[in-house]
Parts: sequence; structure tokens; C-alpha cells
Amino acid sequence: MSIGDAVDRMFASDNGVGASDEIIDAVGRAARGGHLAYGDDGFSAAARTRVADVFEHDVDVHCVSTGSAANGLALAALVRPWGSVLCHRESHVFTDECGAPEFFTAGGKLIPLDGPDGKIDADELIRAARVGVGNVHSTQPQVLSITQATETGSVYTLDELSALTSIAHDAGLRVHMDGARFANALASLDLTPAEMTWRAGIDILSFGVTKNGGLTTDAVISFDPDLHTELSFRVKRAGQLTSKMRFQSAQLDAYLTDGLWLRNARHANAMAARLDAGLRATPNVRVHGGGGANMVFCALPDRVVEGVRDDGFVFHHGHPIPGVARLVTSFATTPAAVDDLVEAIRRHSTDADG
Amino acid sequence: MSIGDAVDRMFASDNGVGASDEIIDAVGRAARGGHLAYGDDGFSAAARTRVADVFEHDVDVHCVSTGSAANGLALAALVRPWGSVLCHRESHVFTDECGAPEFFTAGGKLIPLDGPDGKIDADELIRAARVGVGNVHSTQPQVLSITQATETGSVYTLDELSALTSIAHDAGLRVHMDGARFANALASLDLTPAEMTWRAGIDILSFGVTKNGGLTTDAVISFDPDLHTELSFRVKRAGQLTSKMRFQSAQLDAYLTDGLWLRNARHANAMAARLDAGLRATPNVRVHGGGGANMVFCALPDRVVEGVRDDGFVFHHGHPIPGVARLVTSFATTPAAVDDLVEAIRRHSTDADG
Amino acid sequence: MSIGDAVDRMFASDNGVGASDEIIDAVGRAARGGHLAYGDDGFSAAARTRVADVFEHDVDVHCVSTGSAANGLALAALVRPWGSVLCHRESHVFTDECGAPEFFTAGGKLIPLDGPDGKIDADELIRAARVGVGNVHSTQPQVLSITQATETGSVYTLDELSALTSIAHDAGLRVHMDGARFANALASLDLTPAEMTWRAGIDILSFGVTKNGGLTTDAVISFDPDLHTELSFRVKRAGQLTSKMRFQSAQLDAYLTDGLWLRNARHANAMAARLDAGLRATPNVRVHGGGGANMVFCALPDRVVEGVRDDGFVFHHGHPIPGVARLVTSFATTPAAVDDLVEAIRRHSTDADG
Amino acid sequence: MSIGDAVDRMFASDNGVGASDEIIDAVGRAARGGHLAYGDDGFSAAARTRVADVFEHDVDVHCVSTGSAANGLALAALVRPWGSVLCHRESHVFTDECGAPEFFTAGGKLIPLDGPDGKIDADELIRAARVGVGNVHSTQPQVLSITQATETGSVYTLDELSALTSIAHDAGLRVHMDGARFANALASLDLTPAEMTWRAGIDILSFGVTKNGGLTTDAVISFDPDLHTELSFRVKRAGQLTSKMRFQSAQLDAYLTDGLWLRNARHANAMAARLDAGLRATPNVRVHGGGGANMVFCALPDRVVEGVRDDGFVFHHGHPIPGVARLVTSFATTPAAVDDLVEAIRRHSTDADG
Repeated sequence: MSIGDAVDRMFASDNGVGASDEIIDAVGRAARGGHLAYGDDGFSAAARTRVADVFEHDVDVHCVSTGSAANGLALAALVRPWGSVLCHRESHVFTDECGAPEFFTAGGKLIPLDGPDGKIDADELIRAARVGVGNVHSTQPQVLSITQATETGSVYTLDELSALTSIAHDAGLRVHMDGARFANALASLDLTPAEMTWRAGIDILSFGVTKNGGLTTDAVISFDPDLHTELSFRVKRAGQLTSKMRFQSAQLDAYLTDGLWLRNARHANAMAARLDAGLRATPNVRVHGGGGANMVFCALPDRVVEGVRDDGFVFHHGHPIPGVARLVTSFATTPAAVDDLVEAIRRHSTDADG
Repeated sequence: MSIGDAVDRMFASDNGVGASDEIIDAVGRAARGGHLAYGDDGFSAAARTRVADVFEHDVDVHCVSTGSAANGLALAALVRPWGSVLCHRESHVFTDECGAPEFFTAGGKLIPLDGPDGKIDADELIRAARVGVGNVHSTQPQVLSITQATETGSVYTLDELSALTSIAHDAGLRVHMDGARFANALASLDLTPAEMTWRAGIDILSFGVTKNGGLTTDAVISFDPDLHTELSFRVKRAGQLTSKMRFQSAQLDAYLTDGLWLRNARHANAMAARLDAGLRATPNVRVHGGGGANMVFCALPDRVVEGVRDDGFVFHHGHPIPGVARLVTSFATTPAAVDDLVEAIRRHSTDADG
Repeated sequence: MSIGDAVDRMFASDNGVGASDEIIDAVGRAARGGHLAYGDDGFSAAARTRVADVFEHDVDVHCVSTGSAANGLALAALVRPWGSVLCHRESHVFTDECGAPEFFTAGGKLIPLDGPDGKIDADELIRAARVGVGNVHSTQPQVLSITQATETGSVYTLDELSALTSIAHDAGLRVHMDGARFANALASLDLTPAEMTWRAGIDILSFGVTKNGGLTTDAVISFDPDLHTELSFRVKRAGQLTSKMRFQSAQLDAYLTDGLWLRNARHANAMAARLDAGLRATPNVRVHGGGGANMVFCALPDRVVEGVRDDGFVFHHGHPIPGVARLVTSFATTPAAVDDLVEAIRRHSTDADG
Repeated sequence: MSIGDAVDRMFASDNGVGASDEIIDAVGRAARGGHLAYGDDGFSAAARTRVADVFEHDVDVHCVSTGSAANGLALAALVRPWGSVLCHRESHVFTDECGAPEFFTAGGKLIPLDGPDGKIDADELIRAARVGVGNVHSTQPQVLSITQATETGSVYTLDELSALTSIAHDAGLRVHMDGARFANALASLDLTPAEMTWRAGIDILSFGVTKNGGLTTDAVISFDPDLHTELSFRVKRAGQLTSKMRFQSAQLDAYLTDGLWLRNARHANAMAARLDAGLRATPNVRVHGGGGANMVFCALPDRVVEGVRDDGFVFHHGHPIPGVARLVTSFATTPAAVDDLVEAIRRHSTDADG
């Protein structure tokens, strides 16, 4: 469904809007000149340097076309076929990728863990990391996958992150971070990229670009040089090594230049905070949790959902939480759009009430 | 390696240059407004309609990020795990995808066939299509994969194509076409898209866009509605269902609008013909075969290769044919660039001779 | 660990003892004469006929070396790569096969369902069978896998079975039965093989032989002729098509001849009932559930476990249920052995108490 | 097809006859007493010790149900998903396992090499081991698989073996030996097991038992302790870890006890030599090559094949070599049977001639 120019009514997802001008311009620039293919070009070299600088660490960087591909490749690099990946029950890798992790890992097993607010409970992790260890009849826990920000818009604090990665490393597990909304989490916590990744025990990162202003790229960023060979071949083999890689590299580079990515994320987060505040001040509306990132969840009666949608607003309702609307803000969301949405919800809630 | 603005010296590949302005503009336009994700947007709907119109057939269209992904997905949709894919020994799927077809098919087997000029020999196909049929100890021939244009720049005639697909269908095989350079072949033969695909017995097509003016998309086009469900889930599972699909769809749509794709291909082919003619008129240079599409192969001594490269020209030598240079033209290649290259080869060949 | 001739102290598993004499003799007979390999022999033909007769249905029969292989092959025949298998959280396929189902299905996903006594709860199944249906981001429920008898020794009644298979078929799912202890369940319910399988909606069966008197074979039995080709090739491809298949076929045939399998199972069940009764009459011992098949679970303090093991009894404790001993009887368990075990538990429980 | 007691007319394969009495007896003995499952029993411990003694090396031993499973598991332990296995074009792994190696390796690629007499040509190996190395677009040569004795009954000399393994190791490849007819090769060369394996550069061995007197077991024998963990989990995951492993271990142990395996192999080889000599002395019969192991290939006109088969003899014709009969002897072949076959061929050849 196309919804025309209605950016100001798009709350379905942060991938429902366009891209930052800086990134579109960068793509245009990358179209000039001749370049070697498959990442052996200047734009890709520049992007790799940029990522290393931003993360203050030697890195392997592989631009890929989706977060699912990033997750699948990262997990495949860490887990052997008989291994298992411990992840949250509501995580994207577990519920929303049609088995991509199982495909990329050639049949690895994902073990769902519980925990409130979309965050893995530390005791759950301690328990699960021990299940079947050394028992040939059981898959072997080998990887912890953490989603930051989570699917519910919450953000692990640095202490929470470190607690989980410590448990994981003590148990011999490697750690993957699904950072589809990495920038939103980083902006929310006001940390450096290094602090929220390798210094906190992350081995490999699915780095989201698309949702926060990019066009057609996300990336796998590995902090472990031992994964270099494996990642290179897996990326090719998975059909993710694009010939005109420069067009993805240019996006990644522009995204990280002059703080664009953090400006975008801060704006999106601020819009979510404005929305959260507006809804909490609205009678008869119950806001769930409180994220920190760029999502707000609130319980809405079906009649309200219907009314607000009739006003042209676009958003998901009932997934992942039955009866609850998911409202996502982005770099392109305006304060006016937020206020309009709050007002629409207020109006329909009152009507419903009357 | 970045080679700056040297489009006029880029003969390494048709993916070594930028993109058509029309396609870049289309990407910019797709950045406006709000849209649903994962292909449920107006640009994607328009692209699907456009493809159906151009091919005069109901189609499933899936934009993907690489030709390897297109090939892998198309083959996976046609072959069961115990099946085999018959393909040319020099085909991209067999030699240049790091086992992507084996990965996507969960261990399918590719059987290499011989034939001159990069084309599968019909007798070879007849023989291979019978090997092990019904024998549980043998993989079962299930798919024929034809590359059009071939890796050597040659183009199957319609008669040649039809002969192979008839053999295949008679033997119960499905037929895949790797059309990374589909437009170049089509322009060379002056056929309609329908004539060179489903009317000629092709079940599914890897449709190249990137090499002929696109930015970041290729596509799988299926003419068989029975593959609809399978393709949809496989695309997602392989990490190829992009959230901002509109940016790929917009490229595909622009590519097929007002004949851009054929203009680009005709130009590239013409430049190759000009190069071929120039080289054939050059003493001491032996041109191989004669394609029809946008590649010229010629034997060059190492000293000549070195000299021409020192002049700034970029091209592959020794792969896939030892001792032979592969010179690829594109939509962006200028007549002057071709003439410069011919002149450089002439000059160094004479020097080498002296 | 070898435990010598202590059959009379073996309660660890029904695979901890030898094999029925009739089956050993049949293997010896199959060693005579010359025969074609790979199942193209008289013993295999006879076994196929025998299975068809016993199950009153045309069948495909494939002897395999383990129950894990039987389950993996059966599930792979029913599920496409993007499909999911709904099974009990405690089922063997989910917990005890080191990811064999994921391996055989090339990355299929197993979805664990809850339910008391090791049995899948019908409401859980109704709910799970709907999750994500038609949503390309979600794996698609395609198979229900039922374990009969369950891992906890309980047995689904015919009504319970039919209720589950009806729900499954209504939702478009195929149904697999893991019958590692099929004979024990059948003997417990006093049904015909047909009643407990295809008449109850089972499409394919993992048929256990090894645990109930066999040597080295289990089998996949399919009631769906459409799976014939797929199963044949998958069996070969998985390294399960043995050249001297006759030695497995002879076991299967002997197992089903003159009711041997049911005699064995009835005996094992009777010994479990005797053990259950003995333990329930023992002070301080709490027996869990109440199976019907050949397993008894009872909570035992560590000191008792230690003491009974010091007396030479062999059994599992703490798996799958912490603090609970799993005691398994077999065709070879004697009444005296059961009484000795009850007496040992009584003695150590009293000591522990004092 | 069952062919009754016609052991004396069975030349189709060495798996067409029964098993050695010593091995049948060992199975009977293993049926006594109680034992832990999954190889944690005395028979399995004894077999492991026996193999280590016979091979004069620490080993991992995994009994498996087929040679295909042994090959698949061994190759999977050596090759990463992006790797390739170099093997002979006529090798069993390449032609006769319905893609089992591709299945077990999750899509590894087998690269067929040429060479006379079923043996890999050293220059072919040198060339192939270099193809695509370090090129991310190409699968990476990682394993050499050698079949000893070969599919054509020939036997690599120790010098030939060492030459190949040296080339492989110099190129960084690991080496697998498919020893489905290991004993026949060993007897033919009169070497020790150590000399023909780890001392000659073999990393892992598929050790044939079934064809040379066994019932239902072959084995993977690894000389590389680094593969221990990987093999253990892969064996389980592939459905090859049998619960009553003792019945396979007992076969393996008996096979290696008191030289049974070598007696069987020497006898089979001697019968093949007798057959070879007899046929060479027969007018109008052309014997191919000359193996050393237990197979004889000879060109026979269809009318002769028909006549000899009408006399009750069972053998393959036309596979793998068109127009050529494959005659296989075994531990159970009698001199009289050989003489009868020679006489039958002589008689029908003369008739055909007349």
C-alpha cells in the first residue's frame, strides 16, 4: 500500500519513510566515476575507516541488504551446526525472520529466553547457558544474541548489558548484538559506540542503517579478527556481496559522517518521548512500559484504533502484543505529526467513552 | 581500489561504473512520502505491473541485492535437495558464487556441462539429463540453468535456446535463465522479452539490472504461479526481503520505463562491437570468438597487458581464460574510450613486437 | 560403562538390554545365501509386506539405524524449509537429538508446546497452529509431531490423539508420530496399529524396534504414497540406505511375527505397573504421574539414589525432571528384578529417614 | 530380489553375501547382559582400544550404519561450508551417494578430478588445489578425498598415496580416505594399517566393515584429536549415534580380532585374481585394467551377459563403465564359484562367436 506523501501520519515503522538527504546525496556522488566492484573501491575503503574510527577498534565491515541478513551472517559466524543461540522470546531473530537464522546457520537452534520489557533476564541466561553442556544429545549453547534497542523499544542499560555478556563469556558463549535500532539505543544511553559494543563484551554487531535514515544498507561489524575469513566467504555465499558495493558503502559512510546517525536517532527518540508524554496526559489511554528508544506502546480499544486509522494514521496494532498499538517515530517524524496523533487518539478515546 | 573518475578507462566490468540518471532520480523520488515496508508500497506495485507488461505475462517479481541471490533463490525454488542442476562448466553459478547455489538449495548438486563459446552443447544436455534418473544412489537431474548472455559474451540464438529448453522439458527438467546480462542478449537478438523467456520455455529468470545501469537491485522473475509461495518465503528467509523495498522497486521500474534498459544495452553492445572491430584491425592481436553482447576477449601478451594497464586502463586478464583479456563495455562507455583502448593496445603490441 | 550381566539391575533405559532371541535368530538366518543389496532382497520384501499387513494399509517402509534418523527423515519429508514443527516442550525431537530435526530439514524450526504429563495441550495446539500463518516474516506451522508413548511414560488416549490430529488437519498441518515406544503405547491402549495411526490421522510414523527387543533397526513408516519418492532419496542422501538392508529387514519382520512385539511390550508395561504399585506402597516415596507404558518416575532424595546405585541398580536421576528418578522396564526385566529394586528403594528410604 | 542360497553365483557386490561367523557370534554375545547406551559400554570401549592398537595411533572411532554416512561425516568434519572437496570423477562420494556429502556438509562442493584407473592424477590435483584460492567468489579447496581401493578395483601404491597427500598438505588441504574396501587394499599392498593411513598423511578414514564380512556397521576413524568434539556432535545430529551401539562395536571388534578382516580380504582378493587369470585365458574376453583388490572388469557383449545371467550369475553390467561387466568377489566366494563363472563366460562367448 502506498500512502502518498503522508510522512506525517506514518507511525507503522521507522522504515516507512524515506532517507536522509545526506545519504541520498552520497549515493548520487558514488554514481560518478569508475570503480572496481565488490567493495574494492574508495567509497568502501572510506566507510571501513569511518566505522573503525567511530567504534575505536579494528573492524570487519560487511554491508548487507537487510537486518535479517546481518543477523543470519553474524550468527552463522559464531555458531557451529550443533550449537544453539540464546535469545529473547520476543526477539526479531526468533519471531520475525521466517527462520533466517536457522537457514544461515544450516540448522542451528534458537533457544527463547524470558525477561520483562523485551530484555533477557540474567537468571534465565545463567540457567540456559548450562543446559545440556557437554551432553552429546543436546545442542550446545554457543551464542548469546542481545537486541539493543529491544523489540519493545526498551534499552538495556550498560550495567544490564555487561551483566549479560559477563555471564555469557564465563559460560564460553560468544555475544551478538542485533542493533537494528543501535543508534536509538546509543542516543538514549548517551554512550560511545565502543562503550556499548566491544568494551561491553560484544563480539559482533548487526548495525542498522536503514531504519534510521538509510536507503538500502545495513551492516555486519565484527570486532573479532578471527572471524574475518569466515565472514568474507559467508557474505559472498549468501548472495550479499554486491558488485556495486560502493552504493551501500557511501550510505554507511554518510550515515556516520558529522554525527548524522546520532542526530537522526536523537530526533526520533525525542519524538517518541513527546508522544509518550502526550499519551500519558490523555485520559483513558494506558501507555505500556517506557522505552527510551523510538517506540511507544499503548493499549487502545478497537474503536479508537479504527477511528485514528480513518484519520489517515498508519500503525501496527496487536503485534507483538495483543490489544496494544505500536507507534514508531523516525528521523522524519515532526512534532506537529506527533501532536496530531495524540490529539486524534484523545478525540477518539473520548468519543469511545461517551 | 578506487580509480577516481576514470569511467573512460574502465573495462573491468559493466558493474564498474555508476548508474543511469533516470535510475538515480527514481531513487530520489522514492525517498519522498511515507510508505508501508517490505514491498507493500506503490513503487513496488508499479514495478510489478511494469514487469508483467514488459514480459506480457503474469509474473512474481522479487527484487534482490545480487545476481548470486537471484540465482540461488531461483534454483532453490526449482530443485529438491536430492536434485541436480545442469549448467555450463564456465557458468557463474558453477564457478563464481562461492557455492551460493549449494547454500540456497541446502546441498543441491551442480553438474557442469561442456560446449563451445560458453554455450551448453545439446548432446551433452541430452546425455546428462538421463544420468542416474530413477536411481536412488544418484542425484536427479531437475533443472537446466542457461546463462544468457553467456560468461564469454556470446548469445544463444532463439533456436539454440528452444532446442535446449525442449530437451529439458522432455526430460522433466525445469529451466532457469541466469540473465545477469539479459538486456544485452535481448538487444543483440532483437527479440521481445516474452520471446526470449517464457515463450522459449524459461520457467524462472534471474533478471540483471545492476550491470546495465542500476544501483543496488537485481530481480527474480517467475513465470510459474506455482512458485509464488515458495519464492516469497525463501526470499524472506534468505535475508533478501528489504524493508525499504521501494528503493529497489523504483530502480526496476525506471529501468524498464521508456526503453532505458534496451538503450543502455544497445549502447554497451555497440561499444563492444566497435572494440571488437578495432582490435581485429590491430596487428598481432587475436580476438576470441565474437559475442554479440558487451564483452570482447582477446589474447594479449603479459607485456602488452602491463603497458595498457600502465596507461590507466582497468580490465581482467587471465580469468576465466588464461592468457586472455576480458574487456567489458557498459552503458557509460564512450566511443572515444573504446578508440583510446584500441590505440593503447595497438601501441603496446607494436612495442612488444619491436 | 559396561555393567556385565546385570540385566536384572538395568532400569536406565529399555535400550540397556540385549535383544529378543527371535530377532537374533532372524539376523543369523539373513546371513545365509546371496542377496541383492540396498533393500532389493527377499527379507526386505517380506518385511514390507508384514508391515502393510500389520497396519492394514499400503505403506512405505524404510529401516533406519536410530529413532533420531527416523524422526529427522519423517519431519524432513513433511516440512518445507520455511515451515515449523509443533511438538511438546519435553519431546525427544526438541530436547534430545542435538538438533537432528533442524539438520534433516535444512533449518526447519521446532516450536515447543506445553501440556501436562508430556502431552500436548489441545488449546496450545489451536493457538500455535495459527501463529504467523500467511505472514512471510514468520515460519509457517506445517507439522504436528506427537510422541506416543510420551517421554514421561504417559500414553495419549485415542480420543486425545484424534482431537490433536483433527486440530492439525483442520489447520492444514501434517501429522508425525514419534513411536520410539509405539508398541508400549499400543499394548497399553489395546488398540490395533491401524487404529492408533492412520485411522487416527497419523501421516507418518517413526516406528521403534530397538527399545523393544531389536538390535540395530528402527523404521520410518509412511501411510502417504505421495511421500514415496521424497523419502527414498532422503533416506539415501542421509546415509541411511544400508547395503545389507536385509539384516535390518529381518529384525523388523521377526519383531512383527507372531506378536513378538506386543508380547515384549506387554511384559515391559506389566513390569512398570508392578514397579509403580510397589513404589506406591513404599513409605516416603512419591511416584509421579502414572504412565501406562514402561516408565515410572518417582522423587528420590540424593542419599537414596546413591544407596540404590551402590546396590548396583542403574537408572537416570534428575533428567528430564530434577530430583526425580526415571525407571524404565523392558522386555527383559524380570519380576524379581522389579521386586529387588522396590526393596532397595524401601530400605534406603527408611535408612535416610532414620 | 532375493536369490536364495546362490552365494556361489553372487558377483554383484561384496555386500551381496552374509557375514563372517565370528561377527555373527559376536553380535549374539553382545545381546547378553545389561549395558549403558550410546557407546558407553564395554564392547564399544574394547572396540576403540582394538582400533587404536591395530592402527598404532590414538583414534576417535564412530560406528555408523553406512559408508555414505561415514564419508559424509568425515567430510563435514574437514570442510567449512565455503570449502570444496577434491575427489576422483568416478569416486563413490561424487557419483553414488545422491548428494550425501553435500547434505552432510550443508552445501559443500565436490570438485571432480580426472586420472586413469580410478586414481587421481597428481598434476590434476596440483592444478585443482590452486583454483580460486583466496578468491572470495570461489569455493576454497580444503579437502582431498582418496578412495582406497578405488571404484575400479585398483589400489594406490604407497608412493602414489604419499605423493597425493604431500601435494594436499602443501596446499593446506586435509585428507580423507574412503576405505569402503580398505582391507582389500591393505591386503593387496601388504602394508600395516598405520602405513596406509596416518603415516601416509591421512587425517580421517571411512573404514569399511560391511562389505568384508560385517553385518550392519562401518566406522569413521579419525587420527586428528582436534576433530573429537565436532565428530561427536555431528554423529549424533546425523542420527548415527545408536542406542545399542554395542551391537556395532562388537562387529568392529570381532572384525579386527585375530586378523579376520585381513583373512577375509586376502581371500576375496585371491578369488578376484583367480577370476582375472581365468578370464584372461578365455578367448574373446577383454579384461580391463587389473586391480589388486576384489573386483574384475571385463568387456562382455550383451548376448554373453544375458546368457551368463540366465545361468543364475548375478553381476552389474554397464555401470560405471558402459559395455563392461563388474565382477566382485568377497570373503564368501569359493574357488569353484569363480571357476563356474569363468566357464559360463567362456561358453557363452564361444556361442556368441559361433
